[in-house]
Amino acid sequence: MRKAVPALVLFGLFLAVRAWSLPVETADGAGHGGPVVPVLLGLVVILVAAKIGGEIFERMGQPAVLGELLFGMLIGNLSLLGIGHLDFLQSSVGIEVLAQLGVILLLFQVGLESNVHDMLSVGWSSLLVAVLGVVAPFFLGWGVSAWILPEEETLAHVFIGATLAATSVGITARVLADLGKLSARESKIVLGAAVIDDVLGLVILSVVSGVIGAANTGGTLRAADALVIIVKAIVFLVGAILIGGWLSRRVFRLAGFLRVQGMLLALSLAVCFLLAYLADLIGLATIVGAFAAGLILDGVQYQDLGERTKHKIEELIHPIAGFLVPIFFVLMGVRVDLSSFGRPGVLGFAALLSLAAILGKMICAAGVLERGLDRLSVAVGMVPRGEVGLIFAGIGAQLKLHGQPVIVPSVFAAVVVMVIVTTLITPPALKITLARGDRRKELREGKKAPEPEVEAERALPPLG
Amino acid sequence: MRKAVPALVLFGLFLAVRAWSLPVETADGAGHGGPVVPVLLGLVVILVAAKIGGEIFERMGQPAVLGELLFGMLIGNLSLLGIGHLDFLQSSVGIEVLAQLGVILLLFQVGLESNVHDMLSVGWSSLLVAVLGVVAPFFLGWGVSAWILPEEETLAHVFIGATLAATSVGITARVLADLGKLSARESKIVLGAAVIDDVLGLVILSVVSGVIGAANTGGTLRAADALVIIVKAIVFLVGAILIGGWLSRRVFRLAGFLRVQGMLLALSLAVCFLLAYLADLIGLATIVGAFAAGLILDGVQYQDLGERTKHKIEELIHPIAGFLVPIFFVLMGVRVDLSSFGRPGVLGFAALLSLAAILGKMICAAGVLERGLDRLSVAVGMVPRGEVGLIFAGIGAQLKLHGQPVIVPSVFAAVVVMVIVTTLITPPALKITLARGDRRKELREGKKAPEPEVEAERALPPLG
Repeated sequence: MRKAVPALVLFGLFLAVRAWSLPVETADGAGHGGPVVPVLLGLVVILVAAKIGGEIFERMGQPAVLGELLFGMLIGNLSLLGIGHLDFLQSSVGIEVLAQLGVILLLFQVGLESNVHDMLSVGWSSLLVAVLGVVAPFFLGWGVSAWILPEEETLAHVFIGATLAATSVGITARVLADLGKLSARESKIVLGAAVIDDVLGLVILSVVSGVIGAANTGGTLRAADALVIIVKAIVFLVGAILIGGWLSRRVFRLAGFLRVQGMLLALSLAVCFLLAYLADLIGLATIVGAFAAGLILDGVQYQDLGERTKHKIEELIHPIAGFLVPIFFVLMGVRVDLSSFGRPGVLGFAALLSLAAILGKMICAAGVLERGLDRLSVAVGMVPRGEVGLIFAGIGAQLKLHGQPVIVPSVFAAVVVMVIVTTLITPPALKITLARGDRRKELREGKKAPEPEVEAERALPPLG
Repeated sequence: MRKAVPALVLFGLFLAVRAWSLPVETADGAGHGGPVVPVLLGLVVILVAAKIGGEIFERMGQPAVLGELLFGMLIGNLSLLGIGHLDFLQSSVGIEVLAQLGVILLLFQVGLESNVHDMLSVGWSSLLVAVLGVVAPFFLGWGVSAWILPEEETLAHVFIGATLAATSVGITARVLADLGKLSARESKIVLGAAVIDDVLGLVILSVVSGVIGAANTGGTLRAADALVIIVKAIVFLVGAILIGGWLSRRVFRLAGFLRVQGMLLALSLAVCFLLAYLADLIGLATIVGAFAAGLILDGVQYQDLGERTKHKIEELIHPIAGFLVPIFFVLMGVRVDLSSFGRPGVLGFAALLSLAAILGKMICAAGVLERGLDRLSVAVGMVPRGEVGLIFAGIGAQLKLHGQPVIVPSVFAAVVVMVIVTTLITPPALKITLARGDRRKELREGKKAPEPEVEAERALPPLG
């Protein structure tokens, strides 16, 4: 039987080639699958590119998301080599919708992993690190943009500043976990700050997007508009968490009595999509709503249902996110127009933007209130922008200001370079600074391995 | 703290209403989320409708898919009541792509659950039951269509016949499982036949679709075309199973050495989408390729990888299918134009089609070769058309013959009625015939409970 397989394969191959070369009516008979057919081809290319890219970068000790991005850039720019078969990826509505659902689910997952209580308990250091780490790169980026691109409008500079604001917690968390450092106090400050940082970033994004919307219609940019949007964003987040949490606790408890399969998954997705839709309706970004939905559902309210079905929301969302999230990152890569790097100044702008992004986060070190901690590691841990910067840039590329996209293709390419640079340097830099910090601590505590008593002394009383 | 919650909720509600009634620029600031925003609203409506409909029908002892279909009909026809907010569901490309991915994943799951070895081992009874159960309703449906709709083209009649051909194995399996009858010989014949039936149905679908494609270009309908497509479909299925199985065994073994997360899921989806795309490329339906992909991956080849990640393909696909599959069924319901039932003859045509569908499958009883089995139960078990009939009708509604859809809206509505009727009557009818069969067996074997020796006698030697 086993010996027959190669022969059968050859025979099958022969038949397949015969079938392939059959009369031309096949080509016309084809295509009855409707709009899904090009999407299928696109998904195959994207999934394979994501995994090959991810694998190569993981083997080099880098986060997989960079591989997805770079392989996306590769397949998106094949037309530079005269291969235009995949150009449809740029404009396919189906792929775009799937990618957007991916980023919505990603923020939903981040929300599920965060919770309000943790965010309130990480202490003053995290809050200060987060605020400094958002404000400094925001203004640095704004300044760089205003200096290099004087012909752009002020709002475009503000938006470019916003893409520099938020840290990507995933990449730092991954590196800290790989180094076995997740329980160190420095790590807790970084992770707590990254969550607050996400929320601040979302608020900045909402304000900037909202003001751009207002500028499109009214024309004048008033400080009151910004204030209105800040209030709206805060009201939305607080309202969603309070009302949504209260309502969804009841809905999920009710759902616990239902019989039909898949209720937990369907309800969780419905809550996520509904809040994403409502966020857009009041002028915020969809991902703000998805994040709020994750915060709401990260609690006890679905436990009775979850125990019955023996699944947690996270586990059910995981494969769906595993399918859709890489589509977003590959598509972000696809949309980078490599030929824009040929334009004068783009590479220089990218370099300055990266510098602003890195220096801006170095100021975080000043936010660490506790003594004896390795401040440089905290600051370095805040550097990677990863998906958050890309998400912001993607939104900016879709936003129009007076008919022009806020993030034009060459700026988009520069932002992608900034994301790649900040994300690439973090893992090696963090390894170096953490080792340096350990050496310093050892020096302070005597060159030999610390005895149990010394260990107890080293633990600082919690602040805040 | 707990007491403060209602007050906070009220305050949040007040702020939310205030934010809602803020100046109009919010409406213009909104919509920057791009094409995903209406899809989000559609998904919320569809997911909630699917689960409410599913729950109501499960409580009535009916399959959940009927509830999804009927609630889809409800939300799709709200415009008859003057509520047009959801009309965008009919034409949204994003929802259409998600629904098509859903049906592709459904057939992938069916393929994963089937396997070639089981299909070959179910014996002659299953094969005969399947062939009779496909051929008889196919010609009966063709005849009914030709009689009632003499103005339609022959190929339309043939397509309507094809929608009557295939059994929906899911519904019967569910009923048999609920009655604790899955291991009965009758059940095994029905389930085996339903799988063969699926393959025959897919071949008929491919032939009919292909011939329509040929008729669109060439004009003349030649028997040779049909033969070419039969050969192509068989070559595709056999080739995919042999070459694809051989290749994917190697690819998955290689993937077992890789580090990046989510490789099993990404590769499985890539194989599924690739074969679906290739199927369309050579003029077959995408679902034929997805089914073949499921057959290929239902084996040992991914075990090494699967064990490492502690997940099976089925488990990873399950939540994704749980999200996407209901979208397909609700959308099928949405597309039923209830006002077409007002047109003369549509309800009568639907009734005749349902009769043809039921009587056609009754002939299956003649295919049971073993003596002493309850033939009526086998035949009744083959009656439900469920998703398969809907999938065929959906493809027919997209296919154009000389610029006209092959399945016009009123015929689509009649096919949906046929699906609903055959699916609704099966659970109660099967309960009745199985109880009757048990009484008869008891009569034959003496009125008292059978003793162990009698039990052994009752087991028939396997045929085929």
